[in-house]
Amino acid sequence: MKINNKDEYIIIVGCGRLGSHLASLLSKERKSVVVIDNNEKSFNRLSKNFSGFTIEADAIEEETLLKAKIDKADVIVTTTNDDNTNVMVAQIAKSIYKVPKVIARLFDPSRQEIYEELDIDTICPTILSAIEFKNIIIEAGGED
Amino acid sequence: MKINNKDEYIIIVGCGRLGSHLASLLSKERKSVVVIDNNEKSFNRLSKNFSGFTIEADAIEEETLLKAKIDKADVIVTTTNDDNTNVMVAQIAKSIYKVPKVIARLFDPSRQEIYEELDIDTICPTILSAIEFKNIIIEAGGED
Repeated sequence: MKINNKDEYIIIVGCGRLGSHLASLLSKERKSVVVIDNNEKSFNRLSKNFSGFTIEADAIEEETLLKAKIDKADVIVTTTNDDNTNVMVAQIAKSIYKVPKVIARLFDPSRQEIYEELDIDTICPTILSAIEFKNIIIEAGGED
Repeated sequence: MKINNKDEYIIIVGCGRLGSHLASLLSKERKSVVVIDNNEKSFNRLSKNFSGFTIEADAIEEETLLKAKIDKADVIVTTTNDDNTNVMVAQIAKSIYKVPKVIARLFDPSRQEIYEELDIDTICPTILSAIEFKNIIIEAGGED
């Protein structure tokens, strides 16, 4: 794997609540981050200390990805609210640009298999949260 | 704490993606679960093996909570898409009915303090997911 912690380069697609929070977290860890969103106002969600770049454009267009230097990216994360956009961009990144690490946000858990076939890591906020809630509840019972 | 694992009684408010997934998980663990949602169609999201009860009504109305036997609940979880509803129901459960464990889904992380003052546990899917993404990214870097 060509990833090097020092100059790791990460592209985040979507600057909603999740994308912006992640971008701010990674920027804090001194990673090089570029965030793409087609709505300029979304970038207001980034923390004041965010030191990366922003691109206002549609990530589905290849021109946008080239502008974000996808050919040099170590990691790409798709975090938009639309599963179709997320899988499409993830697929382009994986198949055409051979980005070493591709991670996609997943809304509909039933789509998991498609991603697995494409060797794309997925994170489903709904499942994560349900497990977390369950753990807190079970833990409470254990205190008895 | 009066919770007993065997007959633990859990109320879930909201049967969206998160609420339905959680209800199904807990039902699988043989917990007694009641799910409240004001839209009957939401209950279609529950797994086929869900063995709990459903109540089609507005959880903000006290009558609904009494119908759900809130006075006997060990745990109440508010999972709706609306922070106001979640905090209001959580507050009623904690202050009036002294439910031992109250957990609320939180959309807007800046509201965290309000919940802490009320001694209500919160789970913010956005923050959870951002941390999970970050861990996967940092982990990938570690493989170098």
